[in-house]
Formats: sequence, structure tokens, C-alpha cells
Amino acid sequence: MAKYVYSFGGGTAEGRGDQKELLGGKGAGLAEMSGLGLPVPPGFTITTEVCKEYNKNGGRYPQGVEEQIDAALARLEALQSRKFGERSDPLLLSVRSGGPVSMPGMMDTVLNLGLNHENVEGMIGHGFDQRFVRDCYRRLVSMYGNVVLGVPHDGFERLLAQAREREGVEVDSEISAAGLADLVERYLEYIREEGKEFPQDSRAQLAGSILAVVESWNNRRAFEYRRIHGLPEDSGTGVNVQTMVFGNRGPDCATGVAFSRDPASGERRLYGEYLVNAQGEDVVAGIRTPIAILAADGTSNLGRDFPEAFAELERICTVLEDHRAEMQDVEFTIESGKLYMLQTRHGQRTGLSAVRIAHEMVVEGRIDEREALRRVEGEQLVQMMAPSFDPKEKQAAIDGGGLLAKGLAAGPGAASGRIALSAEAVTEMASEGPVLLVREETSPEDIVGMHASAGILTSRGGMTSHAAVVARGLGKPCIVGAGDLDVRDHELRVAGRTFKEGDYLSMDGTTGEVIAGRLEPRASEVIEAVIEGSDKTAAVRAFRCLLGWADAERRMKVRANADTPEDARIARALGAEGIGLCRTEHMFFEEDRISWIRRLILSGGKDDETQALAALLPMQQGDFEAIFEAMEGLPVTVRLLDPPLHEFLPNDDKSRQRLAEQMGVSVEDVERKAESLAEFNPMLGNRGCRLGLTSPAIYDMQVEAITLAAAKLVKAGKDPRPEIMVPLVGSRGEMERLRERAVAVVTRVLEQEEVDIEIPIGTMIEVPRAALIADEIALYADFFSFGTNDLTQMAYGYSRDDSSRFLPQYIEDGVLPFDPFEKLDQEGVGQLIAMACEKGRAARPGMKIGVCGEHGGEPSSIDFFERCGLDYVSCSPYRVPVARLSAARARIYGEAPVD
Amino acid sequence: MAKYVYSFGGGTAEGRGDQKELLGGKGAGLAEMSGLGLPVPPGFTITTEVCKEYNKNGGRYPQGVEEQIDAALARLEALQSRKFGERSDPLLLSVRSGGPVSMPGMMDTVLNLGLNHENVEGMIGHGFDQRFVRDCYRRLVSMYGNVVLGVPHDGFERLLAQAREREGVEVDSEISAAGLADLVERYLEYIREEGKEFPQDSRAQLAGSILAVVESWNNRRAFEYRRIHGLPEDSGTGVNVQTMVFGNRGPDCATGVAFSRDPASGERRLYGEYLVNAQGEDVVAGIRTPIAILAADGTSNLGRDFPEAFAELERICTVLEDHRAEMQDVEFTIESGKLYMLQTRHGQRTGLSAVRIAHEMVVEGRIDEREALRRVEGEQLVQMMAPSFDPKEKQAAIDGGGLLAKGLAAGPGAASGRIALSAEAVTEMASEGPVLLVREETSPEDIVGMHASAGILTSRGGMTSHAAVVARGLGKPCIVGAGDLDVRDHELRVAGRTFKEGDYLSMDGTTGEVIAGRLEPRASEVIEAVIEGSDKTAAVRAFRCLLGWADAERRMKVRANADTPEDARIARALGAEGIGLCRTEHMFFEEDRISWIRRLILSGGKDDETQALAALLPMQQGDFEAIFEAMEGLPVTVRLLDPPLHEFLPNDDKSRQRLAEQMGVSVEDVERKAESLAEFNPMLGNRGCRLGLTSPAIYDMQVEAITLAAAKLVKAGKDPRPEIMVPLVGSRGEMERLRERAVAVVTRVLEQEEVDIEIPIGTMIEVPRAALIADEIALYADFFSFGTNDLTQMAYGYSRDDSSRFLPQYIEDGVLPFDPFEKLDQEGVGQLIAMACEKGRAARPGMKIGVCGEHGGEPSSIDFFERCGLDYVSCSPYRVPVARLSAARARIYGEAPVD
Repeated sequence: MAKYVYSFGGGTAEGRGDQKELLGGKGAGLAEMSGLGLPVPPGFTITTEVCKEYNKNGGRYPQGVEEQIDAALARLEALQSRKFGERSDPLLLSVRSGGPVSMPGMMDTVLNLGLNHENVEGMIGHGFDQRFVRDCYRRLVSMYGNVVLGVPHDGFERLLAQAREREGVEVDSEISAAGLADLVERYLEYIREEGKEFPQDSRAQLAGSILAVVESWNNRRAFEYRRIHGLPEDSGTGVNVQTMVFGNRGPDCATGVAFSRDPASGERRLYGEYLVNAQGEDVVAGIRTPIAILAADGTSNLGRDFPEAFAELERICTVLEDHRAEMQDVEFTIESGKLYMLQTRHGQRTGLSAVRIAHEMVVEGRIDEREALRRVEGEQLVQMMAPSFDPKEKQAAIDGGGLLAKGLAAGPGAASGRIALSAEAVTEMASEGPVLLVREETSPEDIVGMHASAGILTSRGGMTSHAAVVARGLGKPCIVGAGDLDVRDHELRVAGRTFKEGDYLSMDGTTGEVIAGRLEPRASEVIEAVIEGSDKTAAVRAFRCLLGWADAERRMKVRANADTPEDARIARALGAEGIGLCRTEHMFFEEDRISWIRRLILSGGKDDETQALAALLPMQQGDFEAIFEAMEGLPVTVRLLDPPLHEFLPNDDKSRQRLAEQMGVSVEDVERKAESLAEFNPMLGNRGCRLGLTSPAIYDMQVEAITLAAAKLVKAGKDPRPEIMVPLVGSRGEMERLRERAVAVVTRVLEQEEVDIEIPIGTMIEVPRAALIADEIALYADFFSFGTNDLTQMAYGYSRDDSSRFLPQYIEDGVLPFDPFEKLDQEGVGQLIAMACEKGRAARPGMKIGVCGEHGGEPSSIDFFERCGLDYVSCSPYRVPVARLSAARARIYGEAPVD
Repeated sequence: MAKYVYSFGGGTAEGRGDQKELLGGKGAGLAEMSGLGLPVPPGFTITTEVCKEYNKNGGRYPQGVEEQIDAALARLEALQSRKFGERSDPLLLSVRSGGPVSMPGMMDTVLNLGLNHENVEGMIGHGFDQRFVRDCYRRLVSMYGNVVLGVPHDGFERLLAQAREREGVEVDSEISAAGLADLVERYLEYIREEGKEFPQDSRAQLAGSILAVVESWNNRRAFEYRRIHGLPEDSGTGVNVQTMVFGNRGPDCATGVAFSRDPASGERRLYGEYLVNAQGEDVVAGIRTPIAILAADGTSNLGRDFPEAFAELERICTVLEDHRAEMQDVEFTIESGKLYMLQTRHGQRTGLSAVRIAHEMVVEGRIDEREALRRVEGEQLVQMMAPSFDPKEKQAAIDGGGLLAKGLAAGPGAASGRIALSAEAVTEMASEGPVLLVREETSPEDIVGMHASAGILTSRGGMTSHAAVVARGLGKPCIVGAGDLDVRDHELRVAGRTFKEGDYLSMDGTTGEVIAGRLEPRASEVIEAVIEGSDKTAAVRAFRCLLGWADAERRMKVRANADTPEDARIARALGAEGIGLCRTEHMFFEEDRISWIRRLILSGGKDDETQALAALLPMQQGDFEAIFEAMEGLPVTVRLLDPPLHEFLPNDDKSRQRLAEQMGVSVEDVERKAESLAEFNPMLGNRGCRLGLTSPAIYDMQVEAITLAAAKLVKAGKDPRPEIMVPLVGSRGEMERLRERAVAVVTRVLEQEEVDIEIPIGTMIEVPRAALIADEIALYADFFSFGTNDLTQMAYGYSRDDSSRFLPQYIEDGVLPFDPFEKLDQEGVGQLIAMACEKGRAARPGMKIGVCGEHGGEPSSIDFFERCGLDYVSCSPYRVPVARLSAARARIYGEAPVD
């Protein structure tokens, strides 16, 4: 017969710590601790197999389970020298669930099983404290009534409150023993009113509790949780039956939780909290405030209150860390000064803590470098690098009704400041302190204001809207698509309140929360230190060290998307090995250039055009020189002009008036031009290489500027490595012609400058058709770079600027499992990428292929790119460390550790 | 040694008619006619091999060619009993090129070879007419000088004009013999001035002419022509050397061309024209007006002028048709009353003629039905069905400067009428005669006006812009993207002229020409007769019969895209076997519905919404009843609402004001709503199934209306076959949820109505991702229907509304070989289609798959769909005959006969 029940306690255990699948996480932990000789109250675990079989067999236990439970109970009684259900000093038990994965919705805990009317009186007669015994019984009846019998919890709460009122006391622990005895009767009456009966028979209590755990597998909340998290339905939960120990038996008793290292900072010291004279559920109920294990002055409160138990707990945590090689999260109870361990598991932690713990465990020789890389997820690095609010301050502000709205968390980090409702206002206000730009949405015209802002907040747009992309590029906190924000008439209306320009707001771009008032963000010391090149704290050292290990493991290069020398420098400091996307249009929006590009657009003829281009050429050349210099010796992929021309014309009447005056044309001319350039679907319009073919002079100028800049640096003894990238190619004809044109310009300029340098000419793969015919396009392209934003837009037919109309609802309703602008859609868009890699390299063996869309910095996407054999990913400068780590994780673990 | 020269004449020939590849088309025709004993002036053909070898060997003839030419010339001299180059009565020759495919740019013809100073005088001495001989010599010198020696043609023209002036005569034929002798001297002098020399040696003349033909293979125009038409570079041309016969030797001589059947009407009678006393080049020069073979009264002019030759020509044409089983286009010369045949080839013809000839040749037993289907191309049917202008009237109007603009030929057919510059104006003016709607572009709001118009003309948009799609659906002539039209301030400005509303214009939607004034279009009798069900003319009978044969051959079904009962009836009359796309949004634009749908959009809450939907339900139900009834027993695929909601709101201030009044809300409310619905890229926005998920009540109402309509007809003993189609699906989640919802409504209504009927629920495949994950989607879709318009838009990333900015230039420059909105892009978009078919049927074997995009009526696309194994194509009602024919051609010939 199969073994369904595993006993533990008394220094041994039938199960092992690695049997998480069979015993559940809790059961395996208990077995492990028992086996290590740690002080675990004895008990037994009913395996997950029982739950599985029960479900498979339509609600029947497999044969022999009851008998095995009886045998385990008998062994337990023998070990403890007490009898379950006995009259004067009975064995009392707890029942807890515990699957391989912790799952909300499962029945959690029933304590004090084994008490009944008869033995409560027997125990009092035997000398047990009357109040303690009656309180234990009261707790059993309400817990059992609620979680096993399904009687509503609030009824018990109501009766408890009435009992306090009757005695005129504030807290439960002040209710008298008589009052508790009366309360038990009222509880039992309440349960009967609900058509149920509390069993007086101890065996019936135990059986009922075990069955309740097994059946809670199928309750709605557990089912939904499994569905959402993709957990298998045919798994199951274990059931842990354990001897009770009591933290509520007097002032030399306590109950608490502890981490073997600080889960916030990662520092190696006991961290946690406890309650004196309390049972576990009191901590959860939140009526009494627990005491921190670590005192404010760095000494230990627990060490002061329970010196022996504290020393024992420290010892046990070290034993567990030695054995499990991971930071542990334990539950403990102190009964009459003696420590008991009730649970151990790997502890949750912040990003900062994760990095530091992983690093130090390598230093301590507990794990190797690869294991350290496995344990830190990309998002934890992001979290570590972002500024943040003090969690308590933020919670207080929210509790005080300060949460105004929630949007999409588009750029991690916290910021607060006075709000500005236009980009111009930001510039005006920025000298007087941090400013948050709040807009319906942003456009390229706002770029200067976005630069000057401390954070960006929009009511429209999705994860790759203009605001989101630019903000991430700038490393600024950003929330987009916060639909409750109503920005108009120079006011921001939200949650029934009105904010004017200059009023304070706070925003948490890591969570998407918009909060009233002025919370103070704490800067990420790590980023600052890394950019400065200092190693000032343990966290910074851990960060550098971990990324060094990542660099040693990864195959893919990591580049950055950067348009300015400043961005390039930051990217390089953060480890970028080149620029994968240098957008040239942003250069056109600067004050001194925009008028020339507008002149170009409004030009009446060849002469105007030539004059405008001649003015723009040296400016672009200067831009490129500075960027190539900043990236000396590393490749810089320059994308030729991408947006449609109408983006460069002003939208409002006043600016058009001004422009007309500047250009010496009529406002009607400006309007007519703007109208003639207007498009129904600009995303699918005359932009990218289409513009390069319909208005070829612009690309010619850009290619000339790139080549001249490179030539100048070469002559100065530098090592510039420019690459020219053509956007939006979708047909062989486009690439063939544009390559031919670009080669002609490059050749001409290099001959004229008498410089010899190789300038590869490649293309973005961002139109679905380009992926489908990648073999044709590869004939004329030295490299490919996937533009996964546009590829996603066109593959799904979602405009990233409009998708906030339905995408949030899609994700909430589970129509889509995630936002495909945030994580690459491997199933659909991924097919196009894999196809393009295969076809491209079939036509041009060994072709260099990268990605420069937003997904280039997202861990699960990076994992996919590694599998596709891409040569590099390129992402926002502040994402470079994440990409370095993720590329290593992808290389080491293949498909496994997707965040 | 290989045979390079094939002699013909004297009732025999070394070559055969089927050796077109070897001898060229002309050479094969001459050999064939010779072999049939027809009166062909003897000669020989130098094979295409010689040209090929010449090019392959860097400009050297293969060994033995010269010897074989000499031998053939000797045989010819013997046959004709005259010597080439002889002094008094020499053999004179012509040299003409002739490849397997006729190719502009190749050297064409040199006549009268063999004349020189010496034998011209000898012939005159021998009794030949002096003027005739000197004219022949004059022609030789100028032709040889131009085409062989490369001396500019205009110099010869100038000298000829001076000669006329000197003698004070009007036409060349009045120049005296002395004047011609003088002219020859001046020609020779001119040639010498150009650094060339006219050879007096006859053999040198012949060799030079042959070499000029061979070398003309590599001239630029021929090369470009081969490139554009995809003809192989390694093919070659033949050279035909033939005894001269003279149509210019006196009044009993003539030269002409003839068709064995009327190339316009297809009627079986000789058709063509001739010039008395003329040589071939005179016809081309256009100085004298040729005489029609067929007189206006139905008698034959040629029969009157040359009775014997005419009878002989009729006989020969019958012989040739008997032999070649095709309508022939022949060149002939009558010398001294005797007929000579110079060429025969298959004749070009109009659509009408193609259909009638193909039909009658089957009836006559010349060809079988399949061959008839091979000979009629889809576009010829389109041409046959479209109204047209009288070609002479149109040419006269154009010659008179009436051509105002050219746009894209978006809807075939001719129309003329007074112009209206708004849809409302069309409705107002339509009762007083035909009206042309002229707009910058059209939108769904214009639908009523478009219906009422005789033709539609826009300055923007491409082949699948709103105007183009609707116009083709309505079978109306349409020109789009005519960028020269400037419509504003209630005026149309074009080509420096201004037209007001009510002025007359004419438009030819088959060619894209916009013409000033009022040309009278001739209706297509075929369409009218077929819809009426009459068989009144031979053309109508041929049309019906041919399509009957097509129906017997094709595998794919043909359905129509139709939104109204009227369209459904027309489609059925034209052979549609169902409706593949019944758009439901058009129903919403009708006067009594639009206010309800607007009420729905502006609704403040659940009650308003419910009321609006309750009002719309019976209207939609009524629409569906009428359409299901019209298509009784045939499937009708109803597409649920597709466009974004903002399309239903008015754009202009006046209409918004009116709407606000109607709805009892403020204008600001209307504006705010419109603004909140506005999208940057509506094509990629909240529409289709996204709307179905974000505003589910609309789809529920539509599904209920469909089911109620079907139930009602079933109860009335009818056989409705509705199919429900969900648009824009791109993920499994969308289809899964919407199917579930639709099934619930269908089930509820059918139970309530106590009717049992199967209503399949399928989806469009129009988003690239849908094709990529078609196996997932197929799990929830009973059928697929490709929406190739959107699929093309998204695969290329081209907005069909904006692509006129670059697409015309792309096609003109050869960046793209064709407009992918017109012909399916098999290379790119086709991959998605093939993939979706394969994956869809892998997941759901035998799944019904069709296409309902614009390509469903385009022959080359239909050919591709046949190869993909689609079950049906669906197209505009007026395209149904084309689709029937093309589906049969695709089935019979596979990839071959792509138009």
C-alpha cells in the first residue's frame, strides 16, 4: 500500500526537505527541521497524493489513509505521552494546509483541536490556568465553525464584541474566564442557528479539519488563483497535523516570525517581530502591535526578552542557512521560555536585498556565481535602481485618503513635485524645484519639458506610448493611461478634487499610484554610485559584482537606445557595449533645428530645400561626432529619420501664427501644408523609409552627416563605429534602392575626405512583411534590428497610442495574459522574429541581428531573444544592467527562469 | 552543323507554325502560311539561336551562319529567277525582326534592300516607272540611314520637307522623279555629314540590316521592356529576309491590315483598313487616312476596290482560322491586283470580342470549352461589363484639350454628369439627371450620396480607399487619388480651370481619365440583360454560356459582399452562391438608424443604452430578414459591427449642433464624447471585436437580431442560412469569449422561438497575428474568412487611406511591382494566408475557409486562393462573373494563366 502519512518529531522524520512536491512546502520544511534535530513540535504530514486522489476519485480518500492517520496519531501520542481527546491533560493538535506552492484561498489553520466541554473542565481540574484553557476552547470553536463548518466569520466577531461590551473591557485578553465560558455557549448556539453542529468528539474534529483542507483545493478562490498563475489543476495540497505549543500561556511565552537576513537591506542579522503571550492568529488580527526583533539602537528586543530562545533562534537560522543555502523566513513559538519551530521557507525580499544576499552567499561560499544569477530577477534590479518612497510614509498617505488614481506603471521610481500642465510650464518652473509633467498625453514637441521634469503622468496611452518610451529612456518615473485624470482648462481634476499648476503631487512609477501631497522620494544610491564609478556601499559592491558575473556568462551583447552624448555616457557607465538605436528625429526638435526642419517642410522649391538641408547638415554632424566620441570603439547604430513630417509642424493656432511669421508665409499656407500632410493613420503612413524614398534629400543629408562625423574622428585618431539603419522597410525594393543611395553618399564623402572606414548599412525589421520576406531584404542589409514596438503594433493591429481604450480591460479580463507592448508576445510576434532570423541568416550567413524595441530590456523577452540566437539586445540606458543580468540568466538557464 | 536559316516560299517551308521559339512569331507565321500554300513572298528566317549565340559569344555569329544565309539567298534567287544586286531587274528584299514575343525597341523594318545608284538607273532603263523606283531608293536610304546606321530620323524628315517646299507640293507622292533623285543625293550627303556611309553594295546592305536587327536586342528600350515585363534576357530575336512586293506600284496596288473577326464586337467578318498605292510605312506615318475594309453600310470597300484580292483574303483568313483556331491579325499587300500575305498572328481584342469569339469558336467546333476559358481573361469580362465612352468621341475631347486629370482607375466604367461637391448635394440634384460626386475623399456618412451618384471622383485615397471599395461594391465608375483636383470653397479647381457645382464633367473609371464636358456613356447591355434574365444578343448569350462552362470547371464557390437585399438580388442574378460579407455598419448609417446609434454612443447610462438597442434590434432584424430571404437557401455571412464608434458621430460643427439638440445634450457633451473617442490611428484602435468586448451589448443585439430573423423565416417555411462572423480577432481569448457570448444569445433565442437551426460562428483573419496563431483561434471558430484588405494594411504597415502619399510613386518607380491593395501580395501576405489555412485546418480538419477582402474578385489573387485550397471567394456583386471565370481558370491551369 502507498505511504500517505509521514511522521516527524523527536529528532527524526520520515520525510525529507526536498520532498516539497509530495509533502508540500510546509511539510517538507517541518521534516527537514525535525531531521536536523531542531525543536519542532512532533506531528505528521498527509501527502499531496491524498488530495490528488481524492479529487480524481470524486471525493473519496484512497484506501488506507484513515488507517495510516490513526497509526501516525498513535505514534504521536506515544511520543508525547499524552492522548488525543483525553479528559484531564489531552494532546492538542493543529491542522494546516501546505501545497508545493503557497496558494491563497486554501483553508489555512485550525488550532487547539482536541478540546471539548468535558476535557476543558478536566484540564482546569488538572491545574491548567482556567482563562488560558477557556480561551483556547473559544478560539477552537470559532475557527472550526468558520473554516471547517463555513459559518460566517462576522457572527463570531459580533459575539466577541458583545462579550467585551458586557464586561466593559477593551481587548479580548481582558475578558474573564466566566465571560469566555459564556461566549463559547453563544458561539455554539450561533453555529446551530446556521444549521451546523460543533463536534464534541475529538476524532471527528480532526477528521473534519483534514477534510476541510482537502476540499478547499476546489474552492473558487483557489481555483481562480491557479488559473491566473497557470498552476496545474491536477496537483494537490498536503495536510500538516502537529502537536500544539502555546505562545499564549503566560508572560514567558511568545509567538513570532523572523528572517535570517534583513529582507529590505539584505544585511545579515535576524529580522522580524513577535508578540508576548499570544497565539499566531493574534499577529494576523493586528489588534496588538508586534515588537521588532531588532531594536532601533541595533540591539535585539527579543534577545532582551528571551535571551536563551533568541540565542537558539540565531543558531537555528544559521543551521538552516547552512543547510538550505538560502535566506529563511521562519515561524516560531516560545512556550514557557522554550523555542519551537513551526515553519521554515525561503524568504521574500526586495531587489536590493536580493542582490546583496546573492552576492554575499557567494562570498560566504554557500552558493556559486551561477546560482547567484539564478536568484536575482531582472525586475529586482529595476526595483533596486529606482528611487522610492518610504513605504510607511506612503501607506500613511494612502490610508489618509491620498490615493487619487492608479495608472500603468510605465517608468519605475518615485517622484514628487509641483505639477505643470504643459511642457513649457515645466521649463519655466523647473529652476524652483522638481516638477511633474501632467498631460493627457505627450508628443515629440514636449521633449524638452519631459527632460526637465522629475516625473511624467498621462491620462492616456499605454506601456509604449510616447510618454512611456521617452520616460524610460530618460530613466524618469512615469505613469500613463491614468484614465481618472481629467486635464483641461489649466486644471487637473481627479477623485473629486481639483489641482492647479504649481500644486504638489506624488507619484510612484513602480506601482502606478498617484498620491496627493508631497512625499519625499529616496534616490537610488546604486545608480548614482555606478555612474560615478564609486564602490561606496555593500549594495553597490554587490551590484557591480553580480553584473560582472553576468557579463562573464552571457553570450548576447547589450547595447543602449540613446540619442544624446549624455545618454550615451550614462549607458556606457551602466555597461552598454554600443548604441543599438540612435534616433535622429529627436535632434530635430531642439530649438535651433526645428525651425530649419520646418523650413524644409514648408519649402517652396529646390532652393529652399537645399538651404534648409545645408543648415541642418553641420548640426547633425556635430551631434554624431559627440555621440561617436562618447562611444569610442563601440558600434553606434544610427536610425535615419522615422516619423512623418507633420510631427514637426505645430498643432495650435498660436504656434502656427508664429511659424508663419518666421517663415514669411501666410498662416493659410502653414495650415494647408499641415492639412496636406495630415494622415488618418500616421502610424501606417508616409514615414520611415517611405519618406526616404519620397523625399530622398533628407536621408542623403543624414548619411552625409554620419559619414563626415566619422571621417573627422578618424582623422583625429579616434575609432568611431557608425552603422546606418533604415527604418520601416517592408519590401526588397525599398532596401535595394535606399542602400544603393546611401552607399553612393558614403563612398562619395569618404573619397572626398580621403578616409577609409567600413559603415555597415542595415535595416529595422518592424513591419510584419519584412519578417516574412527577410531573405529578400537580407540581400541588401548588412544587419537586422528588430523594432518590436512597431512589429507588435502591426502584428496585433493595436495602435500603442490608442490601445489604452481596450488593452487594460483585456488584461484585467484575461483576454490577453499580459500587455504585449511590455513583454514580447512570443507566441505570435515571436514567430515573425524567429522566421526573420532564420530567413535572414539563410540568405546572409552569420548576419548580425539585434533588437532595439522596448522589449530589449525586458527579461522574459530577452530570454526569447537568446533562444533565437540574436547577437545583441538594445534598451534604455537605465535598463542596461537588467539586460546584462537577463542575458546571462537566459544563457545559463534557457527557458526556465522567466520572470 | 546546326541549322540557322529556314527558307520559305513557293508553296513550301522548312520551318513550321509551331516553331515560334526558334523562328520568332513572324517567321513561324510566314512558314506556316507558306506551308499551307498561301501567297507569301518567298524568303528565309534566321533563327533566334543566332541572336542568342551572338550575345553569348560577345558579338560573334556562330560558325556557318553567313554560309547558310548565302545558300538561302541563292535558293531565293533561283526561286524568283532574279538576282539580288543585279543591274536591271534586281531581286529586292525586306529585313524584319521577330522574336517569340513582340518587343518595342527592337529594330523593326528595312524595305527595298538591294537598290543602289547603278541598278536604280538600270531598272528605269529596263522600263520600271521612274518615280516608283526613285521613291523606293529614297525610302531605302532614309530607312537604312536611320535604323541601321543610327543617323537621326528628323534630318531625313527635314530634307523631305525642303524637297516638298522646293517643288511647292503638299504631299510626298507629288514630288517629281527629279526631285526624288536630288533628295537621295541630299540624304547621302546628310549621312556622310553624320560620319556614316550608305553602302552601295547590296550584300553589304543585307548584312548590315541583319546585324542591326541582332544588335538591337541589346538596345536600352528593349532591355527596359524585358525588365519590366519579366522577359528572359537569354532569349533572342529572329530575322526575316523576304522578297519585296510593292503596294505602291500604282493604283492597282495597296497595302493593309485585317482581322479575321471584328476585334471590337467579335462578329465574324473581315475587319481592318488599307491604303491604295502605298507602302507599309505610309500607314504608320499617318499622312493619308486609310480606308476601312468594312463600309458604313455593311458592304466591303476592299471588295469593291479589289474584288479578287478581297475574296482571296476572306478565303485565306478562313484557312488560317481553321488551321490556327484563333482570330487572326494579318498584314497584306496587293501588287498589281495580286494578294500577298506578309504576316499573321493572333489578334488583340476587346473584352466583349474576346468573350464572343471564344464562345463562337466552341460552337464552330474549333476549340473546346476549356480552351475558351483559357482565352478570356478576368479583366476582359470587367471591360465587357462596364459602360464606356465612344472611343472616337473621347479621343476628340482629349485632343481638344479636355483631359483635366488622371487618377487611379478604381471602378471601371464611364460616366458623365453634373458635379456635386457634397453627398447631400448629390441627393438634391439626382432627380434632374446623372450627378458625379467629387470629393477630397469619402466617408461612411457619404454613403447615401454615393448611392445616388452616377460616378465618384476623389483627389485622395488609393485603390482600396473608402470611395474605391464602396464604388466597386455599387458597380459605379470611380477614380480616386486624382491629386490634381483641388476641391474647396464650393469649387473644383483643376488644370487651371474652375468648375462649380452643377457644371458637367466626364470620367472614365476604366482608365482614370477626368475629362471636361459631357461625353455620353454607353451602357453595358450585358449586365442589364443578365440581371433581367434575358438572352437578347449574341454577346449576352456568349457571356452566359462561357460562365456556365466556368461554373462546371471551378472548385471554389463564389459569393458576394453585399449589405442590402437589392445588392443580394443583383449578386444572385450574377451567379453568387451566397454572401461572404454582409457588413452591418452600413445599416446603421441610414437616416432612421443613425440617430439611435448616436443615442447609444452618447448614452449616459444603462437605461439609455438599453432603450437605444431595443430600438435598433427590430430594424436590424428586418434588414437580416430581407437579405436572408433574397439569398434563400444560400449562406449569408454577417459580420458583426466593425468600425470604431467615432465614425458614427458627425464631424462638422453644424451637424454636432443639430445632434446635441436632437439628443437634448449640450454641444460640449457631443464634442467631449467625440474627442474621447477620437484615435490617433483608428485603423488600429478600438474597433471590431475589441468593441465587441468593451461594449458587449451591441454584439448581443446584433446576434439576437440575426437569430430572430432566421427563426422567423424558418417558421414561415423558408430556408435561411446565416453565419455569424467576428471581425478583427487577433488572439485566442477574444474568439473564445465572443463565441461563448454569441452561442449563449443564439441558444436563448432559438429556445424562446422554439426553432432548431444551425448558426455557425466564425471569424475574419485580417490581423497578422490571427494568421500566426490560426490553430489557436480555430478551436473556437467554425470558419475563417480572410479580410485581405486589413491583412495587407497591417502586413505592409500601409494605411489604405494614406498610402496615396507614396504608393503611386512606389509603383511608378518599381519599388513595388504592383499595388498590393489591388492584387494580393502572394510573396508576403500570401505566406500569412497559406499559414492560416494550414494551421486552421490542422486544428479543425475540413474547416470552411473563404476570403471576403477586395482581392476576392481579382484574377491573380483568385489563382492563389485556389492553390491555397480555399472553399470560396467573395467579392463585389458586379465582380461575381469575373470571380466565376477566374476560379475556373485557376482550377484548370494552376499557376499558369495569371492575368
